[in-house]
Amino acid sequence: MVNTLSAGDHVLMYETGHFAFLWTRLAKALGLEAEVIAMPGEDETGIPNSWRHGVQADLIEQRLRADTGHSIRAVCVVHNETSTGVTSDIAAVRRAMDAAKHPALLLVDTISGLAGADYQHDAWGVDVAISGSQKGLMLPPGLSFNALSPKAIEASKTSTLPKAFWGWNEIIAMNKTGYWPSTPATNLLYGLSEACDMLLGEGLPAVFKRHRRWSAAAQAAVRAWGLPIQCADDALCSPILTGVIMPEGVDADAVRKVIYERFDCSLGTGLGKIKGRMFRIGHLGDCNDLTLLAAIAGCEMGLRVSDVSLQASGVQAAMEYFQSNPIPALKA
Amino acid sequence: MVNTLSAGDHVLMYETGHFAFLWTRLAKALGLEAEVIAMPGEDETGIPNSWRHGVQADLIEQRLRADTGHSIRAVCVVHNETSTGVTSDIAAVRRAMDAAKHPALLLVDTISGLAGADYQHDAWGVDVAISGSQKGLMLPPGLSFNALSPKAIEASKTSTLPKAFWGWNEIIAMNKTGYWPSTPATNLLYGLSEACDMLLGEGLPAVFKRHRRWSAAAQAAVRAWGLPIQCADDALCSPILTGVIMPEGVDADAVRKVIYERFDCSLGTGLGKIKGRMFRIGHLGDCNDLTLLAAIAGCEMGLRVSDVSLQASGVQAAMEYFQSNPIPALKA
Amino acid sequence: MVNTLSAGDHVLMYETGHFAFLWTRLAKALGLEAEVIAMPGEDETGIPNSWRHGVQADLIEQRLRADTGHSIRAVCVVHNETSTGVTSDIAAVRRAMDAAKHPALLLVDTISGLAGADYQHDAWGVDVAISGSQKGLMLPPGLSFNALSPKAIEASKTSTLPKAFWGWNEIIAMNKTGYWPSTPATNLLYGLSEACDMLLGEGLPAVFKRHRRWSAAAQAAVRAWGLPIQCADDALCSPILTGVIMPEGVDADAVRKVIYERFDCSLGTGLGKIKGRMFRIGHLGDCNDLTLLAAIAGCEMGLRVSDVSLQASGVQAAMEYFQSNPIPALKA
Amino acid sequence: MVNTLSAGDHVLMYETGHFAFLWTRLAKALGLEAEVIAMPGEDETGIPNSWRHGVQADLIEQRLRADTGHSIRAVCVVHNETSTGVTSDIAAVRRAMDAAKHPALLLVDTISGLAGADYQHDAWGVDVAISGSQKGLMLPPGLSFNALSPKAIEASKTSTLPKAFWGWNEIIAMNKTGYWPSTPATNLLYGLSEACDMLLGEGLPAVFKRHRRWSAAAQAAVRAWGLPIQCADDALCSPILTGVIMPEGVDADAVRKVIYERFDCSLGTGLGKIKGRMFRIGHLGDCNDLTLLAAIAGCEMGLRVSDVSLQASGVQAAMEYFQSNPIPALKA
Repeated sequence: MVNTLSAGDHVLMYETGHFAFLWTRLAKALGLEAEVIAMPGEDETGIPNSWRHGVQADLIEQRLRADTGHSIRAVCVVHNETSTGVTSDIAAVRRAMDAAKHPALLLVDTISGLAGADYQHDAWGVDVAISGSQKGLMLPPGLSFNALSPKAIEASKTSTLPKAFWGWNEIIAMNKTGYWPSTPATNLLYGLSEACDMLLGEGLPAVFKRHRRWSAAAQAAVRAWGLPIQCADDALCSPILTGVIMPEGVDADAVRKVIYERFDCSLGTGLGKIKGRMFRIGHLGDCNDLTLLAAIAGCEMGLRVSDVSLQASGVQAAMEYFQSNPIPALKA
Repeated sequence: MVNTLSAGDHVLMYETGHFAFLWTRLAKALGLEAEVIAMPGEDETGIPNSWRHGVQADLIEQRLRADTGHSIRAVCVVHNETSTGVTSDIAAVRRAMDAAKHPALLLVDTISGLAGADYQHDAWGVDVAISGSQKGLMLPPGLSFNALSPKAIEASKTSTLPKAFWGWNEIIAMNKTGYWPSTPATNLLYGLSEACDMLLGEGLPAVFKRHRRWSAAAQAAVRAWGLPIQCADDALCSPILTGVIMPEGVDADAVRKVIYERFDCSLGTGLGKIKGRMFRIGHLGDCNDLTLLAAIAGCEMGLRVSDVSLQASGVQAAMEYFQSNPIPALKA
Repeated sequence: MVNTLSAGDHVLMYETGHFAFLWTRLAKALGLEAEVIAMPGEDETGIPNSWRHGVQADLIEQRLRADTGHSIRAVCVVHNETSTGVTSDIAAVRRAMDAAKHPALLLVDTISGLAGADYQHDAWGVDVAISGSQKGLMLPPGLSFNALSPKAIEASKTSTLPKAFWGWNEIIAMNKTGYWPSTPATNLLYGLSEACDMLLGEGLPAVFKRHRRWSAAAQAAVRAWGLPIQCADDALCSPILTGVIMPEGVDADAVRKVIYERFDCSLGTGLGKIKGRMFRIGHLGDCNDLTLLAAIAGCEMGLRVSDVSLQASGVQAAMEYFQSNPIPALKA
Repeated sequence: MVNTLSAGDHVLMYETGHFAFLWTRLAKALGLEAEVIAMPGEDETGIPNSWRHGVQADLIEQRLRADTGHSIRAVCVVHNETSTGVTSDIAAVRRAMDAAKHPALLLVDTISGLAGADYQHDAWGVDVAISGSQKGLMLPPGLSFNALSPKAIEASKTSTLPKAFWGWNEIIAMNKTGYWPSTPATNLLYGLSEACDMLLGEGLPAVFKRHRRWSAAAQAAVRAWGLPIQCADDALCSPILTGVIMPEGVDADAVRKVIYERFDCSLGTGLGKIKGRMFRIGHLGDCNDLTLLAAIAGCEMGLRVSDVSLQASGVQAAMEYFQSNPIPALKA
């Protein structure tokens, strides 16, 4: 944002969850005019629909068509909402922008999506993507990445938001000779090189399949419990994490505490508008079927200890899924 | 053995499993006259009873009473049979020796038992114990330990079996000033110091309870499957590992291969007389309820994929055990 | 800067070297009106005096007295100039500001100074200090620190420079409960805890003495070579690094290349206005007398291989210093 | 020894230093009849000539010729005497044995020599070599190696010395399928694989040159000091370490203590017959010119602090050597 925009610029941001919301807050803190759109309404328990579904590209298209003066400078969407476990169809957003013939930049947060969910920067026509080292790249936190389109670089030349550390110009210039404007986290760069070797050695299609398979097993478990999955649209369930909504009256954080203290398993908390309503099971990077089953077992025992009524065993359902769905490469 | 005995010495060895058997082979290789006793008979599937039960101290007492000339110089028993998951009552062996008023040394292998199962060198009157770094001490392989009674040290003064690297004399002399006769594995000694801090910080009684709890859950799982536990005596089931006997006609190693290749879980193979008949689930050291459940889940899925008929879900049984039996310290 | 200042704010920055210069550039990039002062003149070889001396507090006092309207909002000085090996007297800067009765904030860069050179945030009346993990704290790069005075926190409430990631408000609020607004570099925090234990275990006075002792030996070496030390004021030579000026006509980077390729020793390059004119020997953190002598030997051999005429052996001079000046704690 | 020999076997052992002496002691402890030969006489300060020179192959030839009944079953020599820094010409020993037409086995200790000094098992006709992980292979202690000739394997079939852990038979059998009879130190095997990649990547001739170059610099330093090198035969100075003899009346261990406590450098002590008379500087594996200079500087300062009179600076001499003798690969 600081590289492509200027004070007071109008940006269209789609709220798919807490990280999209935090991005909006960040935009406002930077002095941008952030217009937030979202799927309207809420489910029967009061959770915003927008936090259970992906970006609705038609809402974006409609808004952009109305912006006949092209005051909107950028459209901001999150690829994989870490707070909900819902992915969004970025290609559809691009198509919507194109259909509206709108010149705004497309900015995408794929921090938790990269290297777990398919992401195609060029094919999807994204202008700026941001990601980090601590998710699918399996590294400690400490590296962040931008992928830029030529149009984004062009926009950066007229952007006037104050920036120093984050400024692309100097980074781009120094990267050409393998340097970095400030002290780089060299040890993480070695780790990144190793992570890339591992991921490319496996092949990205296999990496994505592996994550989708874990997601399918996690979904099977939650459905067996009879609990709602945070992602209400099956086709958009995140390959990276699965959100589990608690029955009304159950404090998700109290359940998480039991699971942590009794079973040594640390789950993601519900954030923002869904705090206390759900928890999150991660299934990404350096894990396997059994570590996911372990996490599901921790949840199932914690739910039972917390007297949450379950319809059936989620562990059994996930095991059945894994039994029936061998990792493709192992079929041969 | 090389420190307390001389060529041709008569030793009484009790075969509780493959590691006891290997010890016997080692004794013979060293030129000792190894007399092997064991519980007679076999179960209905042909597995020796002696590999499913602990040391029967009365057999030892009876044999020692018959040795009126005291030709037997040492009694050798394994504390925790890693090949079967059966522990033996070492204190009972000592009582048997005392009852027979026999002066033989008591030599105990507690390689896999130390720091997972209760072991009381002095109280149980053991003369020589041997252990290693790679089990309950949670270190890489590379350190081995002897605990010695004054009687064992006395015996070492007249022992004539050739020895150099293994010789106690020089080790005892140099240990007094903190040295070691040959280049020590310093890095493992740092690890040992840390492991001891961890174990003593937790408290050995808590460590032992923790392992017994895992064992109880593993037993519950195997019983739910309807499969026999290698240890036929409930009171002697090892806190450290659980052996699972396959139905006749099922190749345990074929099942292990499925579990390894499909579910990334490496189990202990059946050794020696029970090769192909059973596999072993370890539950020791730096693990927790969920990692054990993961292993059990791997077994259960592998058994099903291998078309082994199971009565019920072992994972569910283990989960129920864990739910109902919180770690004592967490009750408060 | 983004936390205490607003667009167009007037800041007084003292250029002691390249990192001070980069800070000025950063201030300008943020839209501040950066007024740079420096000691005037240059030495006989054209190196700015200001890059060979510490901050002259009287220049600051004079400028502040002239600022009767108090337009200057902050005074920015570097504590330990990593590009030159010159420290500055921060307490004197505070006294100058007090003498001028000027209300500007005092902002100090002690990135490379912390935990190597004495630094007294409260006693010296600093408002904001910035430091990092990768110098005296002996950690990989990845953590940065701010120390704040109440006055700085007060100023942050009216500061309007756009900020998000860097904003104190949220950090201060979340730190109270041990959290951080974004994903923290947890592994570095464990390292930081260990580093603090090490440093406080040794005692900061001993840590500072240790660094001053290394600096004295490095200075003795450079003087023996007959080469100028970048720091022209003996009392201000950095305890953390020593800059060595090459004779005119000698390319310092060519010498560094020889030292690197022939002797496997990587030295700091001359930066900015002194590029090619000098190189830097670091002596901080986890090193000892011998590693410093190794670096000095690498320099001495590299200088000789590069046909730089040396008056005497710097290695010998440094060795003599170390021989005559045992580490105080070892005297007893 | 336990693999090729039987109780009471006659072995001819050449004492080149303390490790050769310890080997003799080991042979006697195993019940062998160890006949020790050595270069006669001592130097002017009472140090045995045999501890300052390599194996004199003619002494071996002479002794073997006299053994017309071929009672001698093995000739034992140390390749690189770690206690003295003297290497021996193993090929010459083989030639001597061949000249005497003697069928004894040739057993060689190259524990500290492997991967630092040239060693040619087959070309030199060695029957059994022993080495370890903790020297030129740059690993922690914990692995030991035997290289065997067909003749040695043949001899093992009739050897009757008691053995179990050390027995080749089982090792050879299991190695064929990549296994090991007892729990292997897997982590060290990964390290070994990496070390081999590093050494073979550099090329063994380059590795040996690198070590000889360090040795030459260390020798230059000791000669400059005016102190005797333990190895009295220049052509046999070890590429791996250099022994430094103290002037009479100087306690080498007192000097070592000063160097350790004042300069944080840990040197090898004099062992056995030369305890207190000398110390040892290692230069092997993962070090470089500067780390060796650091060690030499530590010695030089420690010697001066201990009031040992030195003729000149050894550090300067070593630096001059390094300046004049670039690493061959870097010349191009």
